[in-house]
Amino acid sequence: MTDTNTNMRLKLPITCFILEIILIILFGVLVEYDKETDARKWHHSNHSEYDNDFYYRYPSFQDVHVMIFIGFGFLMTFLQRYGFSSVGFNFLIAALALQWATLMQGFFHGMHGGKIHVGVESMINADFCTGSVLISFGAVLGKTSPVQLLVMAVFEVTLFAVNEFILLSLLGTKDAGGSMTIHTFGAYFGLMVARVLYRPNLHKSKHKNSSVYHSDMFAMIGTLYLWMFWPSFNSAITAHGDDQHRTALNTYYSLAACTLSTYAMSALTAHDGKLDMVHIQNAALAGGVAAGTAGEMMLTPFGSMIVGFLAGIISVLGYKYLSPILESKLKIQDTCGVHNLHGMPGVMGAIVGAVTASLATKEIYEKGVRSNIILIQIIFCLGFIMKLPIYGAPSDASCFEDSIYWEVPGDEGGHEGQLTTVKTEEFAKPEETEKLN
Amino acid sequence: MTDTNTNMRLKLPITCFILEIILIILFGVLVEYDKETDARKWHHSNHSEYDNDFYYRYPSFQDVHVMIFIGFGFLMTFLQRYGFSSVGFNFLIAALALQWATLMQGFFHGMHGGKIHVGVESMINADFCTGSVLISFGAVLGKTSPVQLLVMAVFEVTLFAVNEFILLSLLGTKDAGGSMTIHTFGAYFGLMVARVLYRPNLHKSKHKNSSVYHSDMFAMIGTLYLWMFWPSFNSAITAHGDDQHRTALNTYYSLAACTLSTYAMSALTAHDGKLDMVHIQNAALAGGVAAGTAGEMMLTPFGSMIVGFLAGIISVLGYKYLSPILESKLKIQDTCGVHNLHGMPGVMGAIVGAVTASLATKEIYEKGVRSNIILIQIIFCLGFIMKLPIYGAPSDASCFEDSIYWEVPGDEGGHEGQLTTVKTEEFAKPEETEKLN
Amino acid sequence: MTDTNTNMRLKLPITCFILEIILIILFGVLVEYDKETDARKWHHSNHSEYDNDFYYRYPSFQDVHVMIFIGFGFLMTFLQRYGFSSVGFNFLIAALALQWATLMQGFFHGMHGGKIHVGVESMINADFCTGSVLISFGAVLGKTSPVQLLVMAVFEVTLFAVNEFILLSLLGTKDAGGSMTIHTFGAYFGLMVARVLYRPNLHKSKHKNSSVYHSDMFAMIGTLYLWMFWPSFNSAITAHGDDQHRTALNTYYSLAACTLSTYAMSALTAHDGKLDMVHIQNAALAGGVAAGTAGEMMLTPFGSMIVGFLAGIISVLGYKYLSPILESKLKIQDTCGVHNLHGMPGVMGAIVGAVTASLATKEIYEKGVRSNIILIQIIFCLGFIMKLPIYGAPSDASCFEDSIYWEVPGDEGGHEGQLTTVKTEEFAKPEETEKLN
Repeated sequence: MTDTNTNMRLKLPITCFILEIILIILFGVLVEYDKETDARKWHHSNHSEYDNDFYYRYPSFQDVHVMIFIGFGFLMTFLQRYGFSSVGFNFLIAALALQWATLMQGFFHGMHGGKIHVGVESMINADFCTGSVLISFGAVLGKTSPVQLLVMAVFEVTLFAVNEFILLSLLGTKDAGGSMTIHTFGAYFGLMVARVLYRPNLHKSKHKNSSVYHSDMFAMIGTLYLWMFWPSFNSAITAHGDDQHRTALNTYYSLAACTLSTYAMSALTAHDGKLDMVHIQNAALAGGVAAGTAGEMMLTPFGSMIVGFLAGIISVLGYKYLSPILESKLKIQDTCGVHNLHGMPGVMGAIVGAVTASLATKEIYEKGVRSNIILIQIIFCLGFIMKLPIYGAPSDASCFEDSIYWEVPGDEGGHEGQLTTVKTEEFAKPEETEKLN
Repeated sequence: MTDTNTNMRLKLPITCFILEIILIILFGVLVEYDKETDARKWHHSNHSEYDNDFYYRYPSFQDVHVMIFIGFGFLMTFLQRYGFSSVGFNFLIAALALQWATLMQGFFHGMHGGKIHVGVESMINADFCTGSVLISFGAVLGKTSPVQLLVMAVFEVTLFAVNEFILLSLLGTKDAGGSMTIHTFGAYFGLMVARVLYRPNLHKSKHKNSSVYHSDMFAMIGTLYLWMFWPSFNSAITAHGDDQHRTALNTYYSLAACTLSTYAMSALTAHDGKLDMVHIQNAALAGGVAAGTAGEMMLTPFGSMIVGFLAGIISVLGYKYLSPILESKLKIQDTCGVHNLHGMPGVMGAIVGAVTASLATKEIYEKGVRSNIILIQIIFCLGFIMKLPIYGAPSDASCFEDSIYWEVPGDEGGHEGQLTTVKTEEFAKPEETEKLN
Repeated sequence: MTDTNTNMRLKLPITCFILEIILIILFGVLVEYDKETDARKWHHSNHSEYDNDFYYRYPSFQDVHVMIFIGFGFLMTFLQRYGFSSVGFNFLIAALALQWATLMQGFFHGMHGGKIHVGVESMINADFCTGSVLISFGAVLGKTSPVQLLVMAVFEVTLFAVNEFILLSLLGTKDAGGSMTIHTFGAYFGLMVARVLYRPNLHKSKHKNSSVYHSDMFAMIGTLYLWMFWPSFNSAITAHGDDQHRTALNTYYSLAACTLSTYAMSALTAHDGKLDMVHIQNAALAGGVAAGTAGEMMLTPFGSMIVGFLAGIISVLGYKYLSPILESKLKIQDTCGVHNLHGMPGVMGAIVGAVTASLATKEIYEKGVRSNIILIQIIFCLGFIMKLPIYGAPSDASCFEDSIYWEVPGDEGGHEGQLTTVKTEEFAKPEETEKLN
């Protein structure tokens, strides 16, 4: 298991140092405070202090920040032996992505006189873009090395900014909660990468690709933080006043309705009428995704509840019936089922947005589809870059396993065999326990 | 254990779908945005954007929201084999209750021209009402099916709105932090239900009605979030300006003093002078409950600390000496001890409020008591509705056990016997471990 | 193990009750609402409600509050058998310290006409001072009784207020995020105490001074909350408007850069290129500490990233190379490595602050050093007060062990031997497991 290939001693430090030094140099050259963050510019104009955008958006920013680091991080800790990696790699790639996103988003729609202006709004947008990368991480969870993930983050952030520029600036779509730009993009990006990285022999580590009691409890922390703060996510960059207020309200009701339909569908479809933690942890969030585009519009609580209700149903059905087909027919091994949580509900959110906006959106969507086809081709090529055998990806038998990349307690001297013994016993399946005893 | 009676395959989906569809229809007919959430109404009048109530209350709302879903949810995860249900049923009934509360509270005190107006204040009030249901959930934790809990939530929310209407609108009581309306009501409602659902043979599942090391750690997450955000809870709907400020401050000091008296009493009363996690997890919160009514008044930090100090003492004494009596004499099996955390401190809070307000409150309280007597009779009848053998409640031997209603990891093919083997070993008591080995 | 010496039955209640009663009396005599919290004073002047400082600072206060109780509390739960004590004693001493800090800080810089004025700013300052005590707690974690910690808290808060008065009021230093006042002071205070309490035979409980899989997961909750909310910590008491905005932004980028250098250094220095949870849990936060002083200045994102980048490197190197030397040469057993997380990055932050401020700070720093030498002598004396054999400190063999001070599940009748059997098996090391089977 101490495969020299997966040894990160040089690969990871070199990647991190090079990326961070490039970032620091580019920040030095390109980034400056915006007029609400700069001491001179702010005091130059005649404002009251509470006019500063900080007071309108910072509480929402902190909620979004919690979603990114605790929400996504702990949602993925459901795997029995991959908690360190789930929360730890989530932390690493998010810290990179938010810096790179500041530059890329600034480059495409935040340049003022050759400089990228930063403030609370750019921080929220950077966190949003990071969210998209973390959605893709969910699709490949357990099957990639941290270096591979950093490379993915760099490419995805760049394409995210291009896609966002096309959708919001060129086509003039409204998408404050990111049904399209964040969720649909992140999900399909991740699915494309998962397709290229398809492992026909993944069954070798199948016994580790499942949860244990306490890992499901940790995952519920992630779920609940995403659920609770989604009203802040969708309203974080909508206009001041009634817009922020209305978006939060709509999302609140969409999620509540989604939760009821998720529990209903989980009991209906699962074994013996028992609730399935996979559904509760994921599908109950689909209402937030689906309200991402239309949340800021006059959707009404009534409309929001219908959207959330349907999103929960679609998402559970996806986990139950579509995910197995994606793997067997399309060779897409989607670890967290991001297609069910972010993909389909994201598309649904875009449609709801188009209907609610009542615009002549047909043409816009056609253009959107054309630009997306180009992007998907680029993403597919990127997948092959990620497949190069230089990043220290785990072998088929060592997927979903922390001890390849982490010092795991009890793992003294790297005696992986011994470690497995302990841990197998601690989380043992019935048959194995009997054998052990 | 795969009792057809506890099978939720049809019972839970039917209940959820019917309730949610009724909610959606009623929302469609009755609910509309208030003047700070509606695009037209808001821009019609001449406001600054920061006048929108959203900026005064949304951060507090989010804190309250965390208390409802993480705070209450994780506080109840202390049971060794009931974590999925604690946090999962908490999630389900809260998602229902907040929707139903919007309608009921709107019906009693939010109608404008035949419509219920919603915005951030109604969201907070709906979460408050939900909190009351979750307090009652604590009393019956481990002994009810999710369908039973949904039925309880519908009735309790309705009566909560009636009680709130009587206390706040008819009698003119002030109770922003809900010592009476939320805590006392929720606790005694739960205790009445627990009385009707009394199980003489509950000792059959007694070995599961206790904690293990990690489940106590999860419960501390719930405790701390409730403790930290209680200042937001009590101040969330007080008047703008000094009122919100003062309420948060008073609650902060009440809780700090309560924590010291809780630790002192726990060491004093418990075995060998060792601290008892039950006290720390619960009694340390009594200071927030007791400051619920008077927190917005000119109670002063000094007064708040006295209130919190006494609340902690009363609460620990309740856990130590009163709970066993409640079970043996009054046949009330109060799983989480809500009488000690919400019941007695809630009554104390009401008395402190009356004293602090220095009003001619005697008459008001007499009327309050009269209306409460009527309500308690209604609640008692409701208890019998909940006792009908149609909801799939667990048998006496299968209380406090997730695997009846949840797919539990390792529980393949529903071989409950095997599952018990694993889990018993994982959390084994000394004697059992020796036998196994 | 049921040593009468460590029995807290009387020691802890007496200490808590005496301290809390003294606090209540002093609050009654000295403390009153400030002009933004008092009903009469606030309405006397002609303000808009949103001018109330509550709306500028309360969201940041709540973030800081989460850092104090969840952040510090869970960060220290990494020890396998000390979770109850880590989070529980953290809770106790924080609840005491914030009350005592209100009085001490008020006495030194908040007196108005013989009264201490309190409001949201004093609450934040009290939490800051509490943070300093919790940093010191990290240095002595596992080796002290709760009574000892309460005594430490009383002395440390007092000296903190003196030091803060000297640095901020007499010398005129700016230090809003507390690189010097909070982190450096707390770290060196804790190290001095750890030096005096040096245990030459601590190796007797060495096997308990390490983590297990789930305890590391709990610790990551603490890490992430500290990381996410550090922008709020550093900006909580900076001036309204661009200052708060800029401080949050600078801290955000400092932490992001620090995270990348931490991962890089951890892989580079650790065994087989595997990441070490100790580094990730701690060193990734050094960027927040190091941006504490200069964060409010025009440091720029570029400067912040350089600071964070270097702080991460220094901190990991400290854990790897300096901590063993501190123990072997200087006889300082620093359980959590606060010297690496708060000590060195705090000094670095002070230097960065001095450089950024571009003041004639040389003289100020010389004076600061002189006053610190006096304080360190006082702290050293305090250490000896804490060493008195009256507080019920654990024996060398029972350090890092919850069951001395807590009722631990499975610990029936105090049969410590049996308990150890269970827990050893549950978290067994490879060799031990083989023996058991």
